[in-house]
Amino acid sequence: MRSSSTLAVAALAATTLSAALADEGMWTINAFPAEAVEKAYGFRPDQIWLDRVHLSSLRLARGCSGSFVSPKGLVQTNHHCASACIEQLSSTKEDFITLGFYAKEAKDEVKCPDIEVNQLIAITDVTTLIQKATAGKDGQAFAAALKAEIAMIANECSGNDVNIRCDVVSLYQGGLYHLYKYRRYQDVRLVFAPEKSIAFFGGDPANFEFPRYNLDVSYLRVYVNGDPLDTRSTYFRYAKADVQPGDLTFTSGHPGSTNRLDTVAQLEFRRDVTLPRYIFAQSELRAILTVFSTKGPEEARIANEMLFRVENSLKARKGQFSALVDPAIIRRRAETERKLREAVAADPQLQAQYGAAWDIIKNVLDGYRSERDRHVFTEGGEGFRSKLFQIAQVLVRRASERTKPDRERLKEYTDASFPTLRQSIASAAPIYSELEKLTLTFSLTKLREALGPDDAFVMKVLGRKSPVELATELVDETKLADRSLRIRLLEGDKAQIDASADAMIMFARMIDADLRAVRKNYENNVEAPLTKFSGQIAAVTFRLLGESTYPDGTFTLRISYGTVKGYRQDAPITQFSGVFKRATGTEPFKLPDSWIAARASLDPRQSFNFTTTNDIVGGNSGSPVVNRAGEVVGLIFDGNVWSLGGAFGYDQATNRAIAINVGAMREALSTVYEADRLVDELKE
Amino acid sequence: MRSSSTLAVAALAATTLSAALADEGMWTINAFPAEAVEKAYGFRPDQIWLDRVHLSSLRLARGCSGSFVSPKGLVQTNHHCASACIEQLSSTKEDFITLGFYAKEAKDEVKCPDIEVNQLIAITDVTTLIQKATAGKDGQAFAAALKAEIAMIANECSGNDVNIRCDVVSLYQGGLYHLYKYRRYQDVRLVFAPEKSIAFFGGDPANFEFPRYNLDVSYLRVYVNGDPLDTRSTYFRYAKADVQPGDLTFTSGHPGSTNRLDTVAQLEFRRDVTLPRYIFAQSELRAILTVFSTKGPEEARIANEMLFRVENSLKARKGQFSALVDPAIIRRRAETERKLREAVAADPQLQAQYGAAWDIIKNVLDGYRSERDRHVFTEGGEGFRSKLFQIAQVLVRRASERTKPDRERLKEYTDASFPTLRQSIASAAPIYSELEKLTLTFSLTKLREALGPDDAFVMKVLGRKSPVELATELVDETKLADRSLRIRLLEGDKAQIDASADAMIMFARMIDADLRAVRKNYENNVEAPLTKFSGQIAAVTFRLLGESTYPDGTFTLRISYGTVKGYRQDAPITQFSGVFKRATGTEPFKLPDSWIAARASLDPRQSFNFTTTNDIVGGNSGSPVVNRAGEVVGLIFDGNVWSLGGAFGYDQATNRAIAINVGAMREALSTVYEADRLVDELKE
Repeated sequence: MRSSSTLAVAALAATTLSAALADEGMWTINAFPAEAVEKAYGFRPDQIWLDRVHLSSLRLARGCSGSFVSPKGLVQTNHHCASACIEQLSSTKEDFITLGFYAKEAKDEVKCPDIEVNQLIAITDVTTLIQKATAGKDGQAFAAALKAEIAMIANECSGNDVNIRCDVVSLYQGGLYHLYKYRRYQDVRLVFAPEKSIAFFGGDPANFEFPRYNLDVSYLRVYVNGDPLDTRSTYFRYAKADVQPGDLTFTSGHPGSTNRLDTVAQLEFRRDVTLPRYIFAQSELRAILTVFSTKGPEEARIANEMLFRVENSLKARKGQFSALVDPAIIRRRAETERKLREAVAADPQLQAQYGAAWDIIKNVLDGYRSERDRHVFTEGGEGFRSKLFQIAQVLVRRASERTKPDRERLKEYTDASFPTLRQSIASAAPIYSELEKLTLTFSLTKLREALGPDDAFVMKVLGRKSPVELATELVDETKLADRSLRIRLLEGDKAQIDASADAMIMFARMIDADLRAVRKNYENNVEAPLTKFSGQIAAVTFRLLGESTYPDGTFTLRISYGTVKGYRQDAPITQFSGVFKRATGTEPFKLPDSWIAARASLDPRQSFNFTTTNDIVGGNSGSPVVNRAGEVVGLIFDGNVWSLGGAFGYDQATNRAIAINVGAMREALSTVYEADRLVDELKE
Repeated sequence: MRSSSTLAVAALAATTLSAALADEGMWTINAFPAEAVEKAYGFRPDQIWLDRVHLSSLRLARGCSGSFVSPKGLVQTNHHCASACIEQLSSTKEDFITLGFYAKEAKDEVKCPDIEVNQLIAITDVTTLIQKATAGKDGQAFAAALKAEIAMIANECSGNDVNIRCDVVSLYQGGLYHLYKYRRYQDVRLVFAPEKSIAFFGGDPANFEFPRYNLDVSYLRVYVNGDPLDTRSTYFRYAKADVQPGDLTFTSGHPGSTNRLDTVAQLEFRRDVTLPRYIFAQSELRAILTVFSTKGPEEARIANEMLFRVENSLKARKGQFSALVDPAIIRRRAETERKLREAVAADPQLQAQYGAAWDIIKNVLDGYRSERDRHVFTEGGEGFRSKLFQIAQVLVRRASERTKPDRERLKEYTDASFPTLRQSIASAAPIYSELEKLTLTFSLTKLREALGPDDAFVMKVLGRKSPVELATELVDETKLADRSLRIRLLEGDKAQIDASADAMIMFARMIDADLRAVRKNYENNVEAPLTKFSGQIAAVTFRLLGESTYPDGTFTLRISYGTVKGYRQDAPITQFSGVFKRATGTEPFKLPDSWIAARASLDPRQSFNFTTTNDIVGGNSGSPVVNRAGEVVGLIFDGNVWSLGGAFGYDQATNRAIAINVGAMREALSTVYEADRLVDELKE
């Protein structure tokens, strides 16, 4: 028995998870394979190198990466990571998306309404605590115990300090639980942003493609108590020299979410249900926003950010879908899974403890197929796309959740989560009622389509109204666009919310019990068993193969290594000359005036963008590219279309990260924008 | 050897194609299983019954079914089958889509610009001719021989008579070829149509659902030489009594296209490529048209027909996609295929002759995956959605094709196809330039998205223009909206087209060679091998199992049988009372004034819509439901959501056709619309 199991394990180890291949891997900062890097590239990052990368790297809490690049709290990230802020600070009179933004003096730096920056300060393994709390539990009991334990750990960690953020992160699909402790910064100000037309040159058509010519950079600054944060000990210097083909490159950032350890059933569910249905709905939303944008410059301005987000995620999901319908990926996964299950089956004890996990996961997903739309369109929010509705929902729920003990609350309403919640409610970002009506009408229509016009919940929501009538009425008759009112209501008590006659609050109140019921059903009957049995698969994988690989992306800090390298016939580095050649004079290939004016002064052979083999995915946007010396040589802003399949696996032949060369940023700042204050700061 | 083969065949026969189950089947009129019907229902349709059904049934050439229902050429079909005509006859002043239409006197009947009605008069087996012409050929040679033989057969059949239409139909994926000879009617006039709000009550949200309350009927009349066609010998009488649960029902109509005999590789290609990509693109188009429609009543009017078509096909394809991602269907097909291949492999001679077919089909499709978008967005037309472009393309191609021998032409330019071509060019249907610009801009954008902004063909098409600039310019600078000009150009020669300076003709000319190259590649390397090897699979299936089943849908006349029956908990028949209960006063659940006014005079218990087990798919719209006596008891207008999976298989437990009860049509005509002339005619 034992020997056949060993054999099976050997076969398994030879083909699978046991070791990442070549440049593959989004490694945690505390388990970086320095030896592998040394073996491949003759350079071994030491602890000092790793610590600097760790503390200089940042997370933008709404879904991007960044880094400190000066001693005075200056943050480098992508333009598209700050574009919500840039849009929120704009107005009909001054459109910084179109014109760009530059704070000539320190006093001109303006606070971003919604940006939160997180700096990781500690990681603690809490696996044993979680395992103890959930041992022997299933379904609702499992979900409740897990939630309570996580809330307790996070609460204790932050100690009610709003400047500390603590997240319990499930690594390896629940195989390990780590506590990530961050310093939280909510006073983040805009310093510089180029015009969108050069930041996103080529627009959606060029997105995820290469050759590229994008200056997708922006600079922010972290303030504390009204002063720039002192980051003398924790920042990346800008390198003097540009990268060259073959250079060793590191990225540090926050890959959002990958599914490289998912079971075949999970991948098939994604291929057959999650991805296509998401793409169906988003495709329509994209078109609605596109048409809205063509109504006039003001409409284009206010829809810009949402349209970018929708198009970007649409193209990303289409790439993931394409990757998954290529039968090779699922076939390979099936082979891996078969071998792992054989190894488990060869040991009666393992089989008894873990053998059922794969079938249970499949059964849970089979059951969820018919429930998915109800979940996604109700509690998932796809049926109620409106900031005003979201605000109303938060107010209604916060009022009710705060009356409960912390460990029993919905997880986004714990005390530890309150700073994030408060920032969203107190945000000074404008709310555009035309856009609100547009997206709410659309999403109510999709809710009706998904559940059917005769569904009881749909009839409760719409009554005898059409989606456009209901959306118009709710948006027109709510006062929640008033920021001070929202803050008052957030700080008020349940009686105040219960008594409110605000149309949107009344609506959110009316459907809240229905939405909670859907959520509860999902948490107990889908999420809980998936977490539990994915954790079992991870645990048995560790037992058989050790922890020699990296966990799936979890929007936590990861380091990757790779080299500057092209794919197919393309050279890995573009030059300034290319952007002038590719420009057509019409959107989205239209250059801003600033670049046309500066053309003669720019070195046409200046490196612009480059591709590397670094293993990155969405969430890595804004990651610095770092050389052996620990200096910034570039800024990640995209991956190529093949990198989208990176959600399911890494293929060194085609998967590429796309970055801006450091020299291009410097040259643009000095020659095109004459941003001398910034150029000087970046020399420090 | 022999005995194992026999065993395998027996196993095969037990599970598969050999016999349709229960009410399954869209049977050809010349191979109707009268015996099976008698066995199941105690009624055996005789040849007289079949002949009457055959000759009274009609095809609407652009994709619907219909039937003669009076001695004077009166045609019953769906409202949604005539809605293009209803819209084309409307204007800003008189919108018959909204108001309905009734020709009080014979002289008020108005000609539909684009409708062609076909009456089947003969079927001839031409399999041997085709097989002889293509024997031993592959790729380009196969495609050329097949095209030439089909053109010759069709030409000889029609004898240059524009009133005769001859189509060579490939049945069983090329297992058989039948020549279908039709009488062609192009003078078809609108007699009656109700308001869209009752014809399509519940709109897209209710489409493919049940319970339903739709009066989706319209009446047309066929004219010949200015007089109504004499159809005394070939029409269906309206039954006096409504259907009741359990009644035996027949439908005769033209199921458009099914894939019940496709290989697993073909189904997977459909699941992974064809269906999702179609839905992605159509979802955006739907949203674009939806927003356009909300601009005002005139925009709503001119986009109505296209929006309906897009939404209808979108919902249908989504249903097909849902059916295919349910693993049961492909698993069953794989099982059937495995058994068939085992039976073939067990006989060395069969194996040598047919054994490779499945793998070749798979390889062809694997190769086509990366070519599919180029094909669909160029020659397939998805990149050039514009009536004016289509007209220009027809003119350019016709001018060039007519200089070649008939058998060498593109198939839609043979002499036999000319009447259809001419009708499309000479159509008096209005062309709306705003809508043209909208859809052309959209499709050019999608072309760029599909092939990439740096693709050579995309750059040739767009040059330095954006999609909206190019579309606007082409639509503004073409004169092809002028009908008489188009007719002149169609009748002119190649020199005239070559010399034309019309913007759209110049554009069509510029890209024609590129489009033809893509088409040729597709025909030779995809279509030809698929046709050839699907034909081989069909042939070997016949050899092993006989021709005991029905062929996939081919938009040719088929008869189905079934019974009035509900599914799940729903009763199979709705009543007039239901529509008043379900009406909300807002679109799409808003009743027209005529119904609200007539409410008191209507019997609330009058049967309205009903469901049956008849096996129908898209193309059957407008099919009469016929009882044992050969009388019309209903009119098919839809199927339920489960019937959409009917593309791949029939499941009697859930698959239902949806029809209007004959009494509801009669009651509405007399009581709501007081259409006495029509009511009297339907009594004849």
